[in-house]
Parts: sequence; C-alpha cells; structure tokens
Amino acid sequence: VKAQAHRFFVEPDAITGDVAALHGDQARQVSTVLRLAPGDHVVLVVAREDLDVRLDRVGAGEVTGTVVSRQPNPAEPRLALTLALPLLRGDRSEEVIEAVTQLGVSRIVPFTSERSVVRELSDAKRKRWERIARESAETARRGRVPEIAALADWASLFEVLGAPVIVAWEGERDRQLTDALPKESDAASLVIGPEGGLTDDEIALARDHGATIVTLGPRNLRSETAAIAAVALILTQSAMGDRRTTA
Amino acid sequence: VKAQAHRFFVEPDAITGDVAALHGDQARQVSTVLRLAPGDHVVLVVAREDLDVRLDRVGAGEVTGTVVSRQPNPAEPRLALTLALPLLRGDRSEEVIEAVTQLGVSRIVPFTSERSVVRELSDAKRKRWERIARESAETARRGRVPEIAALADWASLFEVLGAPVIVAWEGERDRQLTDALPKESDAASLVIGPEGGLTDDEIALARDHGATIVTLGPRNLRSETAAIAAVALILTQSAMGDRRTTA
Repeated sequence: VKAQAHRFFVEPDAITGDVAALHGDQARQVSTVLRLAPGDHVVLVVAREDLDVRLDRVGAGEVTGTVVSRQPNPAEPRLALTLALPLLRGDRSEEVIEAVTQLGVSRIVPFTSERSVVRELSDAKRKRWERIARESAETARRGRVPEIAALADWASLFEVLGAPVIVAWEGERDRQLTDALPKESDAASLVIGPEGGLTDDEIALARDHGATIVTLGPRNLRSETAAIAAVALILTQSAMGDRRTTA
Repeated sequence: VKAQAHRFFVEPDAITGDVAALHGDQARQVSTVLRLAPGDHVVLVVAREDLDVRLDRVGAGEVTGTVVSRQPNPAEPRLALTLALPLLRGDRSEEVIEAVTQLGVSRIVPFTSERSVVRELSDAKRKRWERIARESAETARRGRVPEIAALADWASLFEVLGAPVIVAWEGERDRQLTDALPKESDAASLVIGPEGGLTDDEIALARDHGATIVTLGPRNLRSETAAIAAVALILTQSAMGDRRTTA
C-alpha cells in the first residue's frame, strides 16, 4: 500500500470477495475529481483493514477494482480515547475535531455546561463535523472514523463516558494530567471545560462520578488548545507505555 | 494578584518606583473598553514579574496606579523552546501562533522550504502575528511575549536555531520525539515541515547541522496539528523532569 494513495472509508458491503465497488460521491470523487484511471490504485479502509485496490473500471456512477492485498491498519492507537468537548464559538469546535481526529481520538461527545455560551448543535453543523472527522481520519491514514455522539448536558455527560474519566480544570493546582492516566488502560475519557470554565458544583458532580480532576499546567489555555494538547499527551503517553511493554 | 485581573505587558519605563503609568492603546483599553475605575486592580507584566497595580487615576490618555505587590511570574517554562514554523495557508499560521504561545514557546521562526506553497510574509501579517502572540501570552498569564523572528529559508534556518534542534519528519519511522529531548536542556528548537513535507535533501542538510530527526507517530498530521502537539509534548516532558528533580 503506497502511503500517498488516496484513501476512502467504505462500508463492508463495498467489498465482495476480491471485488471492490464504489458508488455515489466516492465514485464521482475517483472518476471526476481525482480523474483516476484503470490500473491506478486506491486504499479502501473497512473494519480497520487497509485494502490496496487496483481500479478496473472507472465510471461517474460506479468504480470497480480488485483487492490486491490487505493489512491491518497500522495507525490506530491501542487506547480508545473519548473526548468530551464543549460547544465552542465560531469554527473553533471544527479546528479541534480536525486536530484530535488526526491525533487519534475514538469518540467525541459534544456537551453544554452552566457557563457554555453556545448551547445548540444544529443538524447542519453536526453533518459538517462528521464530514471533517471522516476527511481528517482519511488524511491521517487511520483505520476508523471517530464517532460524534449526541449532545449531552453536564448531568448526563457522566452516564455516557467510560471510566477512567479525567477532567481538566483550572481550579486544580497539583494533580498533573500525566500522572492521572492508568498505565494499563485500554480506554479513557477526557473532559475539557468551556471558555467560561467549570463551576465548583460541576466539579463536585464529576468527583461524585469517580472522575479524576487534573491541571494542564501553570499557563491558562483556551479550550481548543487544552483539548488538542491533552489528547496529544494522553495518546503519546499510552503509546510510550506500549513501547516499553513490547521492548 | 487575582487570577482574573486584566493583564498587560508593559515596557520597563512604565514603572517608576511604585508608580505605574499607562498611555496610548493600553490607557484607552483600561478606560474606554474595560471601563475600569480608581480602586480597580490590573496586573502589569514586565521583565517576567507580575505587578499587582491599584488604579489611582483613569483617563483616556493616561492611567496611573500604585504597585501594591510584585512577584516573579509563575507561568514561564524553564525550557526556552524555539518553534520553526513553515508559512501555512489561510489563517492556519495564526491558529498555531495562538496555541503555542499559550503552551509556552519562547520564539517562533517562520520559514519557507522547497515545497512551501506560501512564500511571503507581509508586514501586515507579521504585525497581526505579533498582536496575536501578545494577546495570547496575556490570556495564558505568561511572563513574556514570544518573539516572532525574521523569515528564514531552509539553508539559513539552522544558523538561527539554537541546539539541540529536533526536526519532525514523516519519513522517519523509529526515533520518537519523546526520546529525542536531552533531559537537562534549558533550550531547544523544534522544526515542523510544510504541508508538502520536507525533501530528502533538506533532511540531509538538517542532519549535517546536527539536527535530530523524529517521528510524531503513525498517524499523518497536518502541520498545524503537528506543531501544537509537539510543543505540548516537549514542554510537558521538560516540566515532568523538573518535578522529578525537585521532588
């Protein structure tokens, strides 16, 4: 599989034995936008496998090809990380979704809390987020697209987050993110607060649900910077543990 | 010093003994935009000290106050990190400058290389970058504003970067960023490539100058995500070393 081949996430029914078939937007992308021809290769990604596919027929409505080889996608992190992300102003949520998808999150749970300024997630915006997640996962050469979960409020958030749950809060002074992650964990959830911060009551509720409250250090970070930096730190620390274990 | 007080970076000549005086934009900000009054407090930051200042007179052209207390700014990292950042399309450079300033970089060196698409940095854009760096440093409660250095090309870049120099490159497979940083270093430089990547010749030149080439992991990151994630990792790892040393 050439690293630079164009990549597409497909549904399992796009592959029948060694025959691959694309329709709709993906067929149009291959034929009309990328102008690929029979003999060119693409990578189809399904069920966390990368399939090297040589194109046989290229039409605007249907593209077919032959699966030449398949391998497990090598880019998925072992740790399944869920990011609980407050709705942010302007296009800042989209910047975060793009970056944390590249970095390797498994699921994004948008939420509102007491000091949230933005409180609604329109269908149009959700569709755009899903498109950004898909395209960013393709660019990053990942084996799956992160799920964008239903909008939650603070009270319901802890019902949908898997343990361990880590909450970054500027009121915490001592406990560091890098000390909070259980070393052997296969899954974790990270909560970032909105621009106005989380209230003492909200932090108390999080503690009641067993969450660990951490600081991201002495510098005051905007929500989007905090989300990107914390996701990078957690997934890198998890990968470092894996390398030590397998070394 | 209250964490939520408004913060301003000032020149040393704004302070005379215990008397502080603001003029120009900063006086107008205090009087007209923030509508502060005598008795309110602001934090003036100069020479990496935070000065708690109680306002005495508030005018549109001049604001004066009394320095109530001063303390070393607690938010500056020990490691002086220089980020060499390629010119990026649209406002992506500005997103990076905002985020890495919050995270704690000391200096940003914009550069162009063989595959750079954007090749010019206008005076207007540089001024905007400097404003973003200043405002982001104030928001982050830092003790200094990162410097935006002159535009460099690849050949001249290594003349202006202090050792050790770490270059993130997607062609590197084995050496990890987290293994590359000397533990005792007080300064380091990080180079992120442009969207089109760095060429083999460019990497060879970097090696000739003693740079260490690293991977940021198996997922393909856009330049802006790579810059934010790598800066977060380096400064966090440096702070972890400090905590171990002082513990």
